[in-house]
Amino acid sequence: MKQPNTEAITHLRNRIHIIIEGTDTRLGKLFDIVLLIAILTSVGVVMLDSVLFVRLQYGTIFFYAEWFFTILFTLEYLLRLFSAPNRFRYVFSFFGVVDLLSILPSYLSLIFGGVQYLIVIRILRLLRVFRVLKLKAYMQQAGFLASALRTSQQKITVFFLSLVLLVTIYGSIVYVVEGPENGFTSIPISIYWAVVTLTTVGYGDISPKTPLGQAIATMVMITGYAVIAVPTGIFTSELTRNMRPQLNPVTCPNCGKFGHAVGAEFCDRCGHALHV
Amino acid sequence: MKQPNTEAITHLRNRIHIIIEGTDTRLGKLFDIVLLIAILTSVGVVMLDSVLFVRLQYGTIFFYAEWFFTILFTLEYLLRLFSAPNRFRYVFSFFGVVDLLSILPSYLSLIFGGVQYLIVIRILRLLRVFRVLKLKAYMQQAGFLASALRTSQQKITVFFLSLVLLVTIYGSIVYVVEGPENGFTSIPISIYWAVVTLTTVGYGDISPKTPLGQAIATMVMITGYAVIAVPTGIFTSELTRNMRPQLNPVTCPNCGKFGHAVGAEFCDRCGHALHV
Amino acid sequence: MKQPNTEAITHLRNRIHIIIEGTDTRLGKLFDIVLLIAILTSVGVVMLDSVLFVRLQYGTIFFYAEWFFTILFTLEYLLRLFSAPNRFRYVFSFFGVVDLLSILPSYLSLIFGGVQYLIVIRILRLLRVFRVLKLKAYMQQAGFLASALRTSQQKITVFFLSLVLLVTIYGSIVYVVEGPENGFTSIPISIYWAVVTLTTVGYGDISPKTPLGQAIATMVMITGYAVIAVPTGIFTSELTRNMRPQLNPVTCPNCGKFGHAVGAEFCDRCGHALHV
Amino acid sequence: MKQPNTEAITHLRNRIHIIIEGTDTRLGKLFDIVLLIAILTSVGVVMLDSVLFVRLQYGTIFFYAEWFFTILFTLEYLLRLFSAPNRFRYVFSFFGVVDLLSILPSYLSLIFGGVQYLIVIRILRLLRVFRVLKLKAYMQQAGFLASALRTSQQKITVFFLSLVLLVTIYGSIVYVVEGPENGFTSIPISIYWAVVTLTTVGYGDISPKTPLGQAIATMVMITGYAVIAVPTGIFTSELTRNMRPQLNPVTCPNCGKFGHAVGAEFCDRCGHALHV
Repeated sequence: MKQPNTEAITHLRNRIHIIIEGTDTRLGKLFDIVLLIAILTSVGVVMLDSVLFVRLQYGTIFFYAEWFFTILFTLEYLLRLFSAPNRFRYVFSFFGVVDLLSILPSYLSLIFGGVQYLIVIRILRLLRVFRVLKLKAYMQQAGFLASALRTSQQKITVFFLSLVLLVTIYGSIVYVVEGPENGFTSIPISIYWAVVTLTTVGYGDISPKTPLGQAIATMVMITGYAVIAVPTGIFTSELTRNMRPQLNPVTCPNCGKFGHAVGAEFCDRCGHALHV
Repeated sequence: MKQPNTEAITHLRNRIHIIIEGTDTRLGKLFDIVLLIAILTSVGVVMLDSVLFVRLQYGTIFFYAEWFFTILFTLEYLLRLFSAPNRFRYVFSFFGVVDLLSILPSYLSLIFGGVQYLIVIRILRLLRVFRVLKLKAYMQQAGFLASALRTSQQKITVFFLSLVLLVTIYGSIVYVVEGPENGFTSIPISIYWAVVTLTTVGYGDISPKTPLGQAIATMVMITGYAVIAVPTGIFTSELTRNMRPQLNPVTCPNCGKFGHAVGAEFCDRCGHALHV
Repeated sequence: MKQPNTEAITHLRNRIHIIIEGTDTRLGKLFDIVLLIAILTSVGVVMLDSVLFVRLQYGTIFFYAEWFFTILFTLEYLLRLFSAPNRFRYVFSFFGVVDLLSILPSYLSLIFGGVQYLIVIRILRLLRVFRVLKLKAYMQQAGFLASALRTSQQKITVFFLSLVLLVTIYGSIVYVVEGPENGFTSIPISIYWAVVTLTTVGYGDISPKTPLGQAIATMVMITGYAVIAVPTGIFTSELTRNMRPQLNPVTCPNCGKFGHAVGAEFCDRCGHALHV
Repeated sequence: MKQPNTEAITHLRNRIHIIIEGTDTRLGKLFDIVLLIAILTSVGVVMLDSVLFVRLQYGTIFFYAEWFFTILFTLEYLLRLFSAPNRFRYVFSFFGVVDLLSILPSYLSLIFGGVQYLIVIRILRLLRVFRVLKLKAYMQQAGFLASALRTSQQKITVFFLSLVLLVTIYGSIVYVVEGPENGFTSIPISIYWAVVTLTTVGYGDISPKTPLGQAIATMVMITGYAVIAVPTGIFTSELTRNMRPQLNPVTCPNCGKFGHAVGAEFCDRCGHALHV
């Protein structure tokens, strides 16, 4: 996909790429800071625009501001697309998709009214700009958390599948017991109620009225109350394990095995003395 | 219980058993996949059927679909019963009971209307079909969680008995303090309120009105808020313990050091071979 | 306090004491089982009696049943008092107080109506009867949990004092911001709301209406959501520590120090060889 | 800033400083106890004053009591200011700010009515007085908790930033889906709803009505239910790590073993004295 005609274009693409993606050059830093402000301002504008009495007063300003930011981000998107070393990969990367979703709702709002509020999704773009702010230590910690989540992902999947089964069955039983006359108008609504109860949210928009329904609700609540221990336990034990003091970073001079128990004098694979 | 008359029947039973219970043969796999789809579809039909405005339109289709699946699962149940090596054990096994409960509500609905929705319990049958989907790693993790739950089962029982006592006493006190005029119409209802509050669900359908009642409610809430730490602590410490890397109970024949890292070939204190 | 007049009375006291407190004799076991049934039945009667439409029908039966049990438990209390080796200590022991509170409400109800429902406190007496049911293993586990709670008691006190300060300040701020016209009629009520919100119960009987009030509520909720980590962390780490593999139960033959690190060859206090 | 004119003033400042800040002298202890009572009484007065029917009866007494305490605390503030070794540092210290905020609302209430209730912030001053009550062990535990919070502060910041992004996006989506006609009148309100739901508070003042909105709500709830595991896991693993018994970093002069139990005098491998 590389443009073969001129070297000038390749040079331009590289320069833009360094400015947009890099943080080392002065222009790159400036670009990131401007972007940070633009994102926050545009999200703020959208939020204020959704408040009726503010819109009534400043509606036109907001309208122009929103289109100003949309065009700005569209230009930026095109520049990123133009300068990306691999365009296909960029478009389908996490940030590529977010960049597109950040401008699409404005254009779609020309067809479907109200959709423009979805551009707050551009707040996710902050994740990219965070690197300007010397947040390296934080990113490391985030990676730490993410790694613990990843290792426990299978256990968490099992846990959620069990929840889905549980909530479906509880919901159906309560639907039969309480019935539409008590607000449990269908099985999906009853499952929604079961989720509201199990997660201990408890809106109270739907709540059981019959003694039997309340007895079942009691069971759902206690299940939810106790079952929270499971994801917590999974995640905590994973984090605790990661934090456990590692092996000594010693390499066996004979067989090359790396990492030995604290206090080990001999390699436990080949029997060679570790500290000669 | 083995049929003595013909070998043909024994042979047939074995073949059916392999298809129904096994996953290695092509027919067995196909059977599991068809079953998976049938379960999901039939549960979906029941759910949609419970939504009034959908039922009004597609009610007759749903009616026939439900009976189609019921007869299908009845046939399957009879086949399982026929091919089971030990029929008595199958009928009273977990899956035997679930299989029966999956078809019974349809037949009962001929007598008691509305009960047919309980057939969503057949979603539990998915647990059996999951094995098709190469979920071995997940099943292992599930076993891991289940084992941690089993070891801490005594502690959890003690915890729940304490909760039951607590909730009964709190409920009765609030009943006396608030009384029927504030919605606490009986002790069972007040206990229901105490559960709603202690588990931090908080529907708000019943809530204390008098200052004294609110003071007691505050205590119930704080109890519930703090006490969640107990099941979480029990489960987490159990999981953490299970995850701790065990030492092999091997004694070094030279220096006598006991306990070596899993996989160690040589003593890490004196360098002597461990397994001579 | 020992009665000096006859040996017969001392003998009788001992016999009654063995029957009432012991579980080894046949009569002692029988006594415990009868007591267990009596407690459960009497609590059940009180609960049913509080349900209006049941009382309307069986009110008189319940009335006589309640007095029957009250007189029964009064006799039992007198017997315990009579046979206690140290009466003063019994009366002020945990179970002595519970025994008294289990009968008092009935007599008080002659003066203040409605108080009789408080006799459900006699459900606490079950704790004593549990020993019949071979619940030794469970009691051990309960002791385990109680010990972890006791060691972390100081940390938990600090945590609760912080909560009290937090809730008082949050409540007062919201009271000033929202005011009586939005349901926050006084500071105590606002503190009650802060507890309802912080513990994530959220009845919804009082909820902020102004934007500023909702912003503060957001902070209260997030505080409550995050702060639950503190008691959980305290309790879990205490339990985990208790479960950690203990020292080797070896006594130094020289200095007598008991308990040495796993794998220790020499006493780390006197330097003497441990395994001679 | 030291007053150069007389030694008498310096002497007076020192004496006042010892009484106010110290707890060793009899006068210092007395001062702390009087302060403790004054704080609690004044907070109690403010709370009662906010309850309408109590104010109607004792309003004038409360009015004078509040001004009495305000003037008392103002004098105390001036004394602290006068006796502080470094006035600038005192004014901007945590307690300096709290001391000022404890009296300011009363004076401001002359201009803006209702603000005087904010003086309950003086309850924070209790933290300073706690030292009288021999709460050293508790303070140590508090420091322990605070240290665990500080070490995990980066992870917790990452966690909260993720929550803010999540809640903003969820809120906006629900705003578009449900719209003002279902109570989601603006994006800020919808974000408020998302916080109420994610933290499992669930007032029920705003709740989704459309099936799509309820489906999204289900996702928010399950997110909130599972995500609580993260701060809990972070804090617990930090506390657990802190509680792990540390080894002393001592090397045996004879066999070279590194790392010995706290308090060990002799190497537990070779028996040689550790500290020669």
